[in-house]
Amino acid sequence: MSLLVVGSVAFDSVKTPFGEADDVLGGSATYFSTAASYFTDVSVVAVVGSDFPEKHLTFLKSRKIDIEGIEQTEGKTFRWKGEYGYDLNEARTLDTQLNVFQSFKPKLPESYKSKNVVFLANIDPDLQREVLEQVENPSLVACDTMNFWIEGKKDSLLKTLKMVDILLINDGEARELSGEPNLVKAANIIHSMGPKTLIIKQGEYGALMFKDGKIFSAPAYPLESVFDPTGAGDSFAGGFMGFLSSTMNFEDANLRKAIIFGSVMASYNVEAFSLDRIKCLDYSELEGRFREFRRLTHFEDLT
Amino acid sequence: MSLLVVGSVAFDSVKTPFGEADDVLGGSATYFSTAASYFTDVSVVAVVGSDFPEKHLTFLKSRKIDIEGIEQTEGKTFRWKGEYGYDLNEARTLDTQLNVFQSFKPKLPESYKSKNVVFLANIDPDLQREVLEQVENPSLVACDTMNFWIEGKKDSLLKTLKMVDILLINDGEARELSGEPNLVKAANIIHSMGPKTLIIKQGEYGALMFKDGKIFSAPAYPLESVFDPTGAGDSFAGGFMGFLSSTMNFEDANLRKAIIFGSVMASYNVEAFSLDRIKCLDYSELEGRFREFRRLTHFEDLT
Repeated sequence: MSLLVVGSVAFDSVKTPFGEADDVLGGSATYFSTAASYFTDVSVVAVVGSDFPEKHLTFLKSRKIDIEGIEQTEGKTFRWKGEYGYDLNEARTLDTQLNVFQSFKPKLPESYKSKNVVFLANIDPDLQREVLEQVENPSLVACDTMNFWIEGKKDSLLKTLKMVDILLINDGEARELSGEPNLVKAANIIHSMGPKTLIIKQGEYGALMFKDGKIFSAPAYPLESVFDPTGAGDSFAGGFMGFLSSTMNFEDANLRKAIIFGSVMASYNVEAFSLDRIKCLDYSELEGRFREFRRLTHFEDLT
Repeated sequence: MSLLVVGSVAFDSVKTPFGEADDVLGGSATYFSTAASYFTDVSVVAVVGSDFPEKHLTFLKSRKIDIEGIEQTEGKTFRWKGEYGYDLNEARTLDTQLNVFQSFKPKLPESYKSKNVVFLANIDPDLQREVLEQVENPSLVACDTMNFWIEGKKDSLLKTLKMVDILLINDGEARELSGEPNLVKAANIIHSMGPKTLIIKQGEYGALMFKDGKIFSAPAYPLESVFDPTGAGDSFAGGFMGFLSSTMNFEDANLRKAIIFGSVMASYNVEAFSLDRIKCLDYSELEGRFREFRRLTHFEDLT
């Protein structure tokens, strides 16, 4: 019942064909913890600069997110700038400023060390392990990563993967990490690196879960207006891990439900810039869209 | 219980990262009718040249396909040459020789005129209408098309679409036909062109059906070895229309089952070159993979 996430808390500047937003609240840990907060208690490890406004911390606290592990130091907050075309599947990164993240040495508050579910969001795999090693005996560890670390820090990433139960990455990253274009074969190679469960995110096409030789395929929710995909993967992870942490049931059937809740959170996330849509949902909206996923995918069995 | 298809019967030369095949049996009507033959009686309208070997016609007859409407004339059979990269989603066309198809004037055998389910495979929309107008009073008409006709013969295509109940196209074509990047909005625009049911094929990602404001999402079957995607769309259409023709039930629940049977046929199709895999299935293999689609997509409802 207690979920810990380490990742970025950041300012994003985003341009899509439908509008733009400058220096809005973003970052993987922000999206993740907001989405997870609908299901469970969540504690954040991150660093922000002296330019980070109190109102954003107040917002996180209003979602009952434990921010004791968000360190505030001299300097500027992590900033990301990106752009999407009409094909909203992939962002073009225009600028990344690590700023205070560059010298971040995470030190977990005492109360964090007994958390039993851990999510290592997409950051330097060295940092991911530094955090994980401070947690005493987690029941479940999941992580995300990206091409930047696959290309630049593969050895370190492989060390992290050995300690991880569930890896969540997108399809291009799965192909790059495994060196194998076919996703079924790629999944087998990635299993051998450590994670017994692999979740491959496919943007507007949904997600695939590979576990014990079985595959689960979940669609994305077809939306009439996708406004901004930034944070969709982190919101997906937040809904997924939040539901798992609230149920503490890691069986196949419950993992499938968790993936649908992840897809629900991602689908709301993309409806607006920043956290504008997912900051103010109520649980009946989550259940409503969960049921819409049932209607979207249901077909009768053979008689 | 009687299905008519007009489309190409052709020779294909295909190169994939896993091998190549020269002048093998191909063409939209060939793939379609072979896939449909597992479900229903199917009659083909097409033209072949004097170079077309008897053995291919013998094969079609062995599948109980009615080939009375396949005209054989002086000249060369339609030929297509294409190549796929590791991303097997899209073929690069290297050469297309229409040959005898160029001057084809389809004339339906008397027995074809009372067929009650019609599939207009991807050919010139003028030809599609010439065939359709010879059928007396069909219960269900579906068609396929491609960017070539959307760009080159849009007015004619729009005339055909007015006469069609179901349109099957891929996602890029849906965007091009509607002029709208968002698929939900694109579907609404295409509905207004005529087809009340739209099926958008998404290659390795599956298919979406839009009908009466409802959406059904079907995944593709994740295969460990995809050998040759040529004909996958036509095999999908063949399984889909074959099942509909055998049941004559066009309700939403039955359309969903038909889409899964289409996906089953497409999944077998891509396992080998040409029709090598789908020419020798038995019905228990179709049912087996249908059930695997259930396991692939199933998740429990909220309690």
